[in-house]
Amino acid sequence: MTYTEAAAWLNAHDRYLILTHKRPDGDTIGCAAALCRGLRNLGKTAHICPGTEETHLFTPYLEGLLAPQDYTPDTVVSVDIAARSLFTKSGQPWLERGIDLAIDHHPSQEFFAKETCLDASRAACGEILYEILKELGQVNAETAVPLYVAVSTDTGCFQYGNTTAETHQVAAALMATGIDVFPLNKRHFRTKTWARLQVERLLVERMHRYEDGKIAVAPVSLGLMDKAGATEEDMEDIAAFLGQIEGVETSVTIRELAEGGCKLSVRTSGGLNATKVCALLGGGGHAAAAGCTVSGTLEKAEEQILDAIRQVEAHA
Amino acid sequence: MTYTEAAAWLNAHDRYLILTHKRPDGDTIGCAAALCRGLRNLGKTAHICPGTEETHLFTPYLEGLLAPQDYTPDTVVSVDIAARSLFTKSGQPWLERGIDLAIDHHPSQEFFAKETCLDASRAACGEILYEILKELGQVNAETAVPLYVAVSTDTGCFQYGNTTAETHQVAAALMATGIDVFPLNKRHFRTKTWARLQVERLLVERMHRYEDGKIAVAPVSLGLMDKAGATEEDMEDIAAFLGQIEGVETSVTIRELAEGGCKLSVRTSGGLNATKVCALLGGGGHAAAAGCTVSGTLEKAEEQILDAIRQVEAHA
Repeated sequence: MTYTEAAAWLNAHDRYLILTHKRPDGDTIGCAAALCRGLRNLGKTAHICPGTEETHLFTPYLEGLLAPQDYTPDTVVSVDIAARSLFTKSGQPWLERGIDLAIDHHPSQEFFAKETCLDASRAACGEILYEILKELGQVNAETAVPLYVAVSTDTGCFQYGNTTAETHQVAAALMATGIDVFPLNKRHFRTKTWARLQVERLLVERMHRYEDGKIAVAPVSLGLMDKAGATEEDMEDIAAFLGQIEGVETSVTIRELAEGGCKLSVRTSGGLNATKVCALLGGGGHAAAAGCTVSGTLEKAEEQILDAIRQVEAHA
Repeated sequence: MTYTEAAAWLNAHDRYLILTHKRPDGDTIGCAAALCRGLRNLGKTAHICPGTEETHLFTPYLEGLLAPQDYTPDTVVSVDIAARSLFTKSGQPWLERGIDLAIDHHPSQEFFAKETCLDASRAACGEILYEILKELGQVNAETAVPLYVAVSTDTGCFQYGNTTAETHQVAAALMATGIDVFPLNKRHFRTKTWARLQVERLLVERMHRYEDGKIAVAPVSLGLMDKAGATEEDMEDIAAFLGQIEGVETSVTIRELAEGGCKLSVRTSGGLNATKVCALLGGGGHAAAAGCTVSGTLEKAEEQILDAIRQVEAHA
């Protein structure tokens, strides 16, 4: 479906339920909130399917939009959901009943819905929702806030490699509605919890550097998590933390697991293939970001990953 | 002068020398590099006045553009320089000789030049240079890189409150030339020196929190700088570091000075007037960011600023 077709389709239906993906991020939540508000402004009935996994960062955008328990929709739309496995617990029954329209930007889209509006060239699903809401005449201050959250969080505030000229065009159009994006940017990009700061401090204190600082390895013990008072929410994207150090080309974060063993995340920027490294330890991923899980202690895991890195380097 | 007039003026002159401001940032350097390249592409002779204070972050953008020692220009243009006091040592003689055109975005512009192209509504001077180079047909991959550096660094990669819809429109147009902004973003926004990381670690370790974490104070002793191996370049924008902690409304960074005494930087986000606080200790600034210098030790300075904060709070 093109944007225009999707807009016409949305105009032709009613009584919407909107589904977000598992472990929801700013893109899926922002898309759902913007679509829900846009549809309501058109006089439609629309609600978002409540999840149980929203983080405190994104729940404010859902205020007043969640479906009441006894709500029976006629039309079910998923936003930013690429695969059947990514439906939430409360979304699962609707997948079985049948999704009417999937709006998405992932190239891995599984085409589980009756209709699909997919544009894999867009950095955020929020860019697609912007185009559709524009067709519906529903880009206004109310929809622009969640759309900005969607687009900015999925691109690391326009810093990631997925950002395109179109991304900035969408941001320009959203800001032109008069919204104040500064508090949104502060909230999403310039705020750290106290526990997160402690994790980062302890990481810097305890990390090891090899090969003149080109390799950085940070063991994250359960004790470290405890000392920092950190929960999983504070560990978001922690694997990227070491990668920002000047001169570091390969960074490894090793998380000690409560059930025993360790989970390793490898990030590379210097040409080393992270997938090849992790494959030696039974893992996988992308060329620049991969992972694996090993048994044994943090010390053992560090030895193993350094061996794996050296093996791949030797064959490069 | 309008953008169109400035473009016509630049077309009508030749043998350019371009001046950047003291303690140069990405905006002044990016503007100078883009203007220099644009003028050269038009067949003009153009060079940038060499400074001695460029930081290693921005020098790459000046490669091949600095004026030879014996260069005698006919036309002197300043970019992003608001005041006479902001000329570099090597720029000073040209200020005395007379600046032909000043291109700037600061409301505090002193109108020291014969002609001035000022637009105080733009977040970065780079936005103005973009508009002028567009008029000259000189927005291409070569000029777009320094222009992107100018615009992105002056807006904290589109995060600061000065960012507008126009800023994103400029970024979209620059990216449409096909430049790869990811390495620029990585360099300017996602890279920290080892020494900087150590400073941040020690700050977290040694900072004090008051009033349930609403006030954060970090003393930065000469010993801390030494331990971190940090130079002034590693301390860029360090006053903002504490302000990112969740719940902190007032943050104070106290730098011990080699010559004795302490320099304090106060940042507020919760309504407290930073200028009023610092005025009590003989300083000044803006409502959300102010500073002052006091004699005595770090401990003494911390007591004094906490007293000042409480006094202002009591009268609010």
